[in-house]
Amino acid sequence: MVAVSTNPIPSAHGVWCAVLTPFDEAGLPDFRRLTQHVGRIFAAGVDGIALFGTTGEGQSLSLQERRAGLDAMLAGGIAPERIMAATGCASLPETIELTRHAVQSDCAGVLMLPPFFFKGVSDEGVYASYARIIDSIGDRRLQLYLYHIPQVSGVAISSTVIERLAVAYPGILAGVKDSECNLDHTRRLLARFPELAIFVGYEPHLPAALAAGGAGTICGIANLFPRLLRRLHDDALTAPGDDDLRLIESFIEALQRYPLFAAFKALQADLSGDDGWTALRPPLVALDSGERQAWLAAVAASGIDAERDAAGPY
Amino acid sequence: MVAVSTNPIPSAHGVWCAVLTPFDEAGLPDFRRLTQHVGRIFAAGVDGIALFGTTGEGQSLSLQERRAGLDAMLAGGIAPERIMAATGCASLPETIELTRHAVQSDCAGVLMLPPFFFKGVSDEGVYASYARIIDSIGDRRLQLYLYHIPQVSGVAISSTVIERLAVAYPGILAGVKDSECNLDHTRRLLARFPELAIFVGYEPHLPAALAAGGAGTICGIANLFPRLLRRLHDDALTAPGDDDLRLIESFIEALQRYPLFAAFKALQADLSGDDGWTALRPPLVALDSGERQAWLAAVAASGIDAERDAAGPY
Repeated sequence: MVAVSTNPIPSAHGVWCAVLTPFDEAGLPDFRRLTQHVGRIFAAGVDGIALFGTTGEGQSLSLQERRAGLDAMLAGGIAPERIMAATGCASLPETIELTRHAVQSDCAGVLMLPPFFFKGVSDEGVYASYARIIDSIGDRRLQLYLYHIPQVSGVAISSTVIERLAVAYPGILAGVKDSECNLDHTRRLLARFPELAIFVGYEPHLPAALAAGGAGTICGIANLFPRLLRRLHDDALTAPGDDDLRLIESFIEALQRYPLFAAFKALQADLSGDDGWTALRPPLVALDSGERQAWLAAVAASGIDAERDAAGPY
Repeated sequence: MVAVSTNPIPSAHGVWCAVLTPFDEAGLPDFRRLTQHVGRIFAAGVDGIALFGTTGEGQSLSLQERRAGLDAMLAGGIAPERIMAATGCASLPETIELTRHAVQSDCAGVLMLPPFFFKGVSDEGVYASYARIIDSIGDRRLQLYLYHIPQVSGVAISSTVIERLAVAYPGILAGVKDSECNLDHTRRLLARFPELAIFVGYEPHLPAALAAGGAGTICGIANLFPRLLRRLHDDALTAPGDDDLRLIESFIEALQRYPLFAAFKALQADLSGDDGWTALRPPLVALDSGERQAWLAAVAASGIDAERDAAGPY
């Protein structure tokens, strides 16, 4: 256990984008295009990015690609304090390697899945995983954000585990990304762990989560409509943006009929005028042209104003 | 697509053991102990091993540990034609690297999960994953065994995908490990794909699967009671071993009350007289001493004769 008494880095908060990862024609991650994209969404009001999370197909990249990607972002001028590196792997040694790299790169924090291959693991096993990682890193600069997305990872992070980590690693356990898409669950976390930065993954929950003391959102739609997310966030406490909330809900309703990340990328290609964005790495596959056309028509019909809400042409 | 007209390597068949991976006191995989274990179960009648599969906590090992582990087994004198290397990772580049290493090491084959992080992926996505891997390897020595274990991986391999791979890659697609634990599913595979080597993961299904044309089993209990599995296999077609089948069912019934791999390792420690075997890597954790005692008593009560059925003291 690392003895830590103070938290040297202020917790992340605001509008963070779970950035999409573009691939080039050879199927390799295209970090030049990614850096450009991040610059555009930052200019459109996004506070930071989660790099190589679920939306970014992080688990489809190799450890070496994830390391190289972070290095490329930093070399491209993206400030490390605006990057939360998703470092969770199926195996602990690889999570430790990526986490150490992120800490040594001065990232704002790491967003960490529990090991996700085995299902039905005990709280003791999830706790032991995080504890072993933190102890192996042994660096008080580590700012750990737990990544709770059980419907994808298959492994939930219970409040019991969060509590044990909060007690054992104060100042290191910084927050939770709650991507369960269940507002009641988020509210329970906020009530029980007021000292942690709780982010929601599901965009429509942002205003309610902020009102209950939430830190903000780490979400995918900020790739596409960063200005809309910025407005939804900033108006939440003063002039609740009901129209913006309805827009996002309407967009998500249209999205239900398509594979999520393929739809995101098809739309990103359309908004950026760069068809290269449509590519995904298997096991995810791009929309076919009919689906793509129908999806873009559905977005247009959802009422979202791309001219106002997207980052603008590339 | 690799053009292949003949299958240069006879398909694996018989009793294959999904070997447990021992860890040393520092939490690192102990390949010396593993090599010794494999030698013992081979001497007790096991035909081959699946290395670093689910039972072997393969997904809890890093890519480098899995590479090094295969090298260590070969250096320790385990014949590559008796090794099926489990090479599936969450990411394609890593699956490709491990698969290439196994092919270049002359392994009998590779046992390959589909990418397992994303859930609800399409048949097209699962097919595209395997096709990209096979095309990248580009080596007709590749003998691919698909690893169907949806209750753990979260990603099923449908008959549609198997059919497409069988047509596109004859001589490379060698078989399926069916660990769904559903005999009807195994029978459907056997009926539809008579040219493939179909292995069952669930030990009690071995006699019925063999009777329907199955290739054998790749299973965990062969770590503990290799002689029992050998007998169950050899008697299946001539003198169906009902007593042995009942023994295994009784053992599995006792097993239901414990975390599977922790129980396997506690028993392996007991049978081998080597307490080091109890260690697992998080997210899996060892039985506590009370559980261990109860579990070993339940094994004794199950009627299995360790003296007759285990590999013998180490």
